[in-house]
Amino acid sequence: MKKVLAINSGSSSFKYKLFAIPEEKVLAEGIADRVGIDGSSFEIKLANGEKHTQEIAIPDQETAVNLLLKALKDYHVVDDLSEIVGVGHRIVAGGEDFTDSAIIDQAKLQKIYDLKEYAPLHNPAEGKGIEAFMKLLPDVPEVGVFDTSFHQTLDPEHYIYSIPYEYYEKYGIRKYGAHGTSVRYIVGRAGQMLKKDVEDLKLIVCHLGSGASVTAVKNGKSYDTSMGFTPLAGITMGTRSGDVDPSVLQYIMNKDHLDINEMIDILNDKSGLLGISGISSDMRDLENNSAQRAALARKIFVNRVRQYVGSYIVELKGVDAIIFTAGVGEHDAGIREEVMKSFEFMGLEPDYEANKSNGEKFISKPDSKIKALVIPTDEELMIERDVVRLAHLN
Amino acid sequence: MKKVLAINSGSSSFKYKLFAIPEEKVLAEGIADRVGIDGSSFEIKLANGEKHTQEIAIPDQETAVNLLLKALKDYHVVDDLSEIVGVGHRIVAGGEDFTDSAIIDQAKLQKIYDLKEYAPLHNPAEGKGIEAFMKLLPDVPEVGVFDTSFHQTLDPEHYIYSIPYEYYEKYGIRKYGAHGTSVRYIVGRAGQMLKKDVEDLKLIVCHLGSGASVTAVKNGKSYDTSMGFTPLAGITMGTRSGDVDPSVLQYIMNKDHLDINEMIDILNDKSGLLGISGISSDMRDLENNSAQRAALARKIFVNRVRQYVGSYIVELKGVDAIIFTAGVGEHDAGIREEVMKSFEFMGLEPDYEANKSNGEKFISKPDSKIKALVIPTDEELMIERDVVRLAHLN
Repeated sequence: MKKVLAINSGSSSFKYKLFAIPEEKVLAEGIADRVGIDGSSFEIKLANGEKHTQEIAIPDQETAVNLLLKALKDYHVVDDLSEIVGVGHRIVAGGEDFTDSAIIDQAKLQKIYDLKEYAPLHNPAEGKGIEAFMKLLPDVPEVGVFDTSFHQTLDPEHYIYSIPYEYYEKYGIRKYGAHGTSVRYIVGRAGQMLKKDVEDLKLIVCHLGSGASVTAVKNGKSYDTSMGFTPLAGITMGTRSGDVDPSVLQYIMNKDHLDINEMIDILNDKSGLLGISGISSDMRDLENNSAQRAALARKIFVNRVRQYVGSYIVELKGVDAIIFTAGVGEHDAGIREEVMKSFEFMGLEPDYEANKSNGEKFISKPDSKIKALVIPTDEELMIERDVVRLAHLN
Repeated sequence: MKKVLAINSGSSSFKYKLFAIPEEKVLAEGIADRVGIDGSSFEIKLANGEKHTQEIAIPDQETAVNLLLKALKDYHVVDDLSEIVGVGHRIVAGGEDFTDSAIIDQAKLQKIYDLKEYAPLHNPAEGKGIEAFMKLLPDVPEVGVFDTSFHQTLDPEHYIYSIPYEYYEKYGIRKYGAHGTSVRYIVGRAGQMLKKDVEDLKLIVCHLGSGASVTAVKNGKSYDTSMGFTPLAGITMGTRSGDVDPSVLQYIMNKDHLDINEMIDILNDKSGLLGISGISSDMRDLENNSAQRAALARKIFVNRVRQYVGSYIVELKGVDAIIFTAGVGEHDAGIREEVMKSFEFMGLEPDYEANKSNGEKFISKPDSKIKALVIPTDEELMIERDVVRLAHLN
């Protein structure tokens, strides 16, 4: 039986899923956590529900990959590593070089490292993950699946910033967006659920996780998106500020004698829901919290989503469906309800009863002019599919 | 005959208008330009159309005020300075202290100086202007008309940034907005033109000048606005960037070894239409320019307006009228047409013929569900009215 591994790396962890192909059945999944930091651990969950976790030093990506391959054999998920015929890797930053997923050779690996300035915490770690697989499974194709590729269809009027144009020419500063792999999955699934060709649909995808973005999709292609040069821009997130008046940075930096890197760290790690509420970056901790600033954080979050969805409806000149996905989007009925309410005046008729529970479904009334849907995202499945497509495994 | 002076200060200039009250007739107007810099000049235009300009050293605000008072007498606009019964001053930053215009005494003058960190180029100059009048016309009430006051009705969910809340508590960092005096005038005039009580109207005011903003107005009150902590935020402007991913600042500053003040200067003075086009900050220079980046700058500008108007329509859950004002809004039919086109799908029926010429008018069809209007703004008239109201001159 042929198998494909999908690797979804963070800066110091990677999640993985092993798929049987062509069935797309998940045979095992898990995480190598805190790679390169104290307290690291490795976890594998088998198709029968069994879960094994070991606390073990994982100093680098190669150790993590070795642990993964060993676990797959030890728990008889694979009898021989040769069953693994392809490995796909989610890569955060693909710049303008990667307009689609790609088989990664040494030259392309170097490109990924070269793009590290666009994602300093992610691209180097992801590059090392690919290198580890190249070493340990040398005959297996490695496929890079870039979070930015899907947004390479944006028009210049949506990706050029209103700053001196030379910064685009010299440094490639423009909107790249993120969450592209997730949105691509959602778009395909939405087409199926709406029983329409995505070519004929105007969709707005609200990927609301600890990182959060809103994307306008026209004819199946990304038309505009809320994240920017980096994933810091756009709507309020767990710990990220999203858009702020740039003068705010100047004021705080001058007052508190911060340099720009310290300031951006604050905007990335101490802002968003956490910064407003002072309580938590996790929407679940704010949901039933009576503190005024917990409620305020939720209201601000909803308003930012509302604003972006509204502006994208106008950019698209209409919308067929608004779709919620990722942690908050899939599980926070209250946030979904508040967002939907804002669009009732335009013809969205929420099905509040359906919205109370989670899972893939319509949460608008059958006759609603604008549909609302919940679709749990599946980035790993998209990665698997790109491996199959690009390595010609079908 | 009683007269009121309205002073509209920039950082190194002030425009003035002298009104007869209660007729609100303009008796004289003009500008003291380049105050405190080389090449300064003083201009007065009389009601009969006569214009007198003198190139003369104007080292400070007091000199400028003296020139103004002398010119008013020399050209027989006033026979005696005692005819001037009130002076109003537009002030850029009023913080949270000024929720309405106010008679300025020594304590309030000090407040204006104290708020200088919110508008370093403007508040000190405006304070000095008030001081000069206090000295030269000691018995006349001085009224401060704050550009931020109108936006003090915003809800916290619209004015709190998604950054650590302590920055609001400690430094007052929040959205203050600007252009409030202009928007307030527009709202009143829109109510008259629409023949409705502003209490019953949802309006969106596009103040599109070299500084540009979009404001949502509900029940006559500011509900949300695109400018932020400072006038740098929001839509693309002549030389200002509006919103950008904060990480862009980090990237450029690290690459080019800039400090934050240099970076913000670039975002204030070399960005916007000028930065994108590389040609000009003036929309008129871009209008019939065949350069690709001139067209791109116009497209980006329109898109930013479209986005904000769209998001505010959703915040308001509908809109009765979209109103264009200020330099570009009053004179650039092409920009107005492009913005209006974006809202046809929502029920705005543009009157393209009416839109071709300028001046106060409807530019939507009579039956249009959403109305579109051009209303030339008149900040000085609002200043005059606030002086009359607060100094009880009526």
